[in-house]
Amino acid sequence: MRSVKIIKVGGKVIGDDQKLDRFLRSFVAIKEPKVLIHGGGSIASDIGKRLGIKPKMIDGRRITDSETLEVITMVYGGLVNKNIVAKLQSLGVNAVGLSGADLNIIPAKKRNPEPVDFGWVGDVEQVNSEWISTFLNEGVMPVLAPLTHDGNGNMLNTNADTIASLVASALSAEFNTELMLCFEQSGVMNGEKLITEMNRLLYRYLKDGGIVTDGMIPKIDVGFQALKNGTKKVSIRSFEDVAKPKSGTTLISN
Amino acid sequence: MRSVKIIKVGGKVIGDDQKLDRFLRSFVAIKEPKVLIHGGGSIASDIGKRLGIKPKMIDGRRITDSETLEVITMVYGGLVNKNIVAKLQSLGVNAVGLSGADLNIIPAKKRNPEPVDFGWVGDVEQVNSEWISTFLNEGVMPVLAPLTHDGNGNMLNTNADTIASLVASALSAEFNTELMLCFEQSGVMNGEKLITEMNRLLYRYLKDGGIVTDGMIPKIDVGFQALKNGTKKVSIRSFEDVAKPKSGTTLISN
Repeated sequence: MRSVKIIKVGGKVIGDDQKLDRFLRSFVAIKEPKVLIHGGGSIASDIGKRLGIKPKMIDGRRITDSETLEVITMVYGGLVNKNIVAKLQSLGVNAVGLSGADLNIIPAKKRNPEPVDFGWVGDVEQVNSEWISTFLNEGVMPVLAPLTHDGNGNMLNTNADTIASLVASALSAEFNTELMLCFEQSGVMNGEKLITEMNRLLYRYLKDGGIVTDGMIPKIDVGFQALKNGTKKVSIRSFEDVAKPKSGTTLISN
Repeated sequence: MRSVKIIKVGGKVIGDDQKLDRFLRSFVAIKEPKVLIHGGGSIASDIGKRLGIKPKMIDGRRITDSETLEVITMVYGGLVNKNIVAKLQSLGVNAVGLSGADLNIIPAKKRNPEPVDFGWVGDVEQVNSEWISTFLNEGVMPVLAPLTHDGNGNMLNTNADTIASLVASALSAEFNTELMLCFEQSGVMNGEKLITEMNRLLYRYLKDGGIVTDGMIPKIDVGFQALKNGTKKVSIRSFEDVAKPKSGTTLISN
C-alpha cells in the first residue's frame, strides 16, 4: 500500500503570507503523496467586514447566512485556494484546487435548522475519493477548500478539520494514511506543556478537567474519528513542524 | 475523432441568476462533451466597488492592480466558478472548476509593462490540455475561470474569449472542435441586422466601415485565430441559442 499524508492547515497561517510561505516550503519537502486541506483563517471575516456584512452569531457560534456563504465561496474557493495552488506550482508541485462540488467529491446535507439554524452549513454525506486517488497516482496534489455542496446547486460551508478527517478515512481503504491537523500552536497544551500523546481516556480526563476546551474539542474529536476509520497516524501539530516525522500531539486509538 | 464543444459565456449572463440558469439548462442539453469558459461579468466590478476599490483605467482600458487581482481571483475563481459547478452538479453533470494554475493548465507571462502597464494581466504561453482531455474522456466537464498563472506564484487576469480560443486550438489536435462565444446579443450585428456569416474579407470591410467596433473586434479576432489553429467551427451567438446547431454569426476561414 502506498502512503499518503492528509494535511490540514488553518488558523492565522492562511492569512499571513510569510507564515503560509514557510509552511508551503516545509510542506513540499515531504516526499510522500499528500492532500492539503486549508481553512480560510481570518481573511473571510476581513473581507466580510469590508463588504459591510456583520458576522451573525447564535450562542457564540457563527451563522452562515447567504451573504456569508458568498464571501466564503469567494475567499475559500477562490482567493485562498487559487493562491495556494499558484504558489505550489511555483515550488514545482503540480496541484489542483478543488471544492467539494468539483467532481462531486464531497456531497453534503444542509444542517437541520432545528434546534439552531446555522444557515448554509453542510454535514458531509460522503467523500467520493476516486478522483483524489487518481490525482495522487498521477503525481498531482489535491488542495481542498472547506466547501461542500448540497446537490441542489448550493455551496455549503463545512469545517476544514472535519473534511480532512473524512478524506483521510476515505483514502484509508486504498492508502496508508496519516492525518496532520496543523495550526499555530505546538499541539494540545496543558498550560505551557505540550501533551505529546493522547488516548481517549486521557482526552476525557483533560476535557473533564477543563484543560482541553473550546475549538480544540472538535479538532480532537475528528482526529479520533479518523483513527477509528482506519487512518494509521493522527497528530495535531504546529504548521512549522509539518515535515517532522514526529511532532505535536499524537492521538492513540487504545 | 470525438467531437468537443468549447463554449464561452460572458457578459451580463454571469451576474444574472435567471439568465445563467436558463443558459445552463440549454447548455446541459447538448449531448457532446464540452468545456465551459466563463467570464466574470459585472460581479467583479460590483464586489470591487463594495470593497472600496476604484477601477483603474488607462486610455479607457482597465488595469489589473494587486487589489483588483485579488477581487478577480475571488470572484472568477471562487464565487462564479464554484456556483456554476454546483449548479451543473444539480443538473446531473459532473463538472470540475479550474483556473489556469490548477494542473498547470494555462501558464502565462505577465504582460510587458511597456508601453502601457496593464498590471497583473497574463498573456497565455501555452494550454496544457492533457488533463482537459482526461476529464472529457471520463465524462467530466471542465469549467474554466479566466485566470492564468505566471509560474512564480502569482495568478494573472486573462481574457475569457482568448482562453476559449486557445483551449479550442489545443484540443483540436485530438478532437473535432467547435467554439461558441456566447453573450447577450444575437451575434455580430449590422445595426438591427444579424450578420450570419463572416469571412476575413467581410470582417475587414465591416471594421473599416465602423460597423464592427470596440469589444467585438478582439472577440472576432480570437475566433478567426481558433479557425486558423484547427478549430472546425466558430460562432458568435446568443447564450439563449447555445444548443442550436446553427445560430448567430458563423466565422468562415476563406
